[in-house]
Amino acid sequence: MTDDHLIERRREGEQVFLGRLLDVRRDTVALPDASQATREYIVHPGAVMVVPVLDDGRLLMERQFRYPVGTVLLEFPAGKLDAGESVQFCAQRELAEETGYRAAEWARAGVLHNAPAYATEVIEIWFARGLRSGPRSLDVGEFIEVTTLDEAELDAAAGRGEVTDAKTLIGLLWLQKWRAGRWPLHWRAPV
Amino acid sequence: MTDDHLIERRREGEQVFLGRLLDVRRDTVALPDASQATREYIVHPGAVMVVPVLDDGRLLMERQFRYPVGTVLLEFPAGKLDAGESVQFCAQRELAEETGYRAAEWARAGVLHNAPAYATEVIEIWFARGLRSGPRSLDVGEFIEVTTLDEAELDAAAGRGEVTDAKTLIGLLWLQKWRAGRWPLHWRAPV
Repeated sequence: MTDDHLIERRREGEQVFLGRLLDVRRDTVALPDASQATREYIVHPGAVMVVPVLDDGRLLMERQFRYPVGTVLLEFPAGKLDAGESVQFCAQRELAEETGYRAAEWARAGVLHNAPAYATEVIEIWFARGLRSGPRSLDVGEFIEVTTLDEAELDAAAGRGEVTDAKTLIGLLWLQKWRAGRWPLHWRAPV
Repeated sequence: MTDDHLIERRREGEQVFLGRLLDVRRDTVALPDASQATREYIVHPGAVMVVPVLDDGRLLMERQFRYPVGTVLLEFPAGKLDAGESVQFCAQRELAEETGYRAAEWARAGVLHNAPAYATEVIEIWFARGLRSGPRSLDVGEFIEVTTLDEAELDAAAGRGEVTDAKTLIGLLWLQKWRAGRWPLHWRAPV
């Protein structure tokens, strides 16, 4: 079975806005019935989220103000890929920069599409353990509070609606599946 | 404890692109240390996702091509709020339009922020049960395949990396928490 009854094909396109953060495109596409439509979307370099598990089982997390939604969110550490960088290296770099922690073991859990209707963004989900603290080095203009929660605290906060960041909720899902022996992780050394 | 050490405050802003789908803004903000920064983001009307549970326990889902990520995704039904519409009404409308199903009972589970770094989007998570099929009415240019999976199938597919849509993975999380008696739902009639 093919998906020809669903697939859209690019006919032409242009960049309609290029800012410091956002690269916005507008394409004309052929729909499955050969009619045409317009698709507007953000080109994103991709990102990585890290679920950092401390030796005592607690989770290393961040509180960060997210301007578009106007509130401080509780999140797992994450960041965008730099040009030419491997995803695992990005995970290691972002964890170190934002929290100061380095990990002895890393595992790639999966990927997620957080806004597939209007962004190319793919977030890879990584786990880190064997964590040791060190100095952090936030980017200029980056204000992040590092905190720790155990799984039960994070689970309860999510159930009360206090955790709304999508990637972080999926990090909780992966964490609980992994700890239940359901979705395995394969650990490797840092790069 | 306040979050003054994290919060950014708007100084001025402008609309830098307005297309058929995307409304892009660029604001100048004051950072917690009073320095200035630029924030670019999409203004989004908000959306709703529905986790529709059939009488036999199976889940009503959709397969849809998502042009920005170039692939068909397996998703729970979802859609954007129309102007002036309540979220529950939007949930009922989108479920009926995309799948043809109407539900006798509805429950609001929670909310998620899918792209808080660059979009104002909030997705409310709703559950629907007591489902009865009827005619669907897709928008022009909308091509959606309706399918059903049971929870174990969806869980296994997610563990294999075959479910990547963020809201849908969070729907699975909520579904399993609800069925485990951990995150309760409060059912109500349609509006």
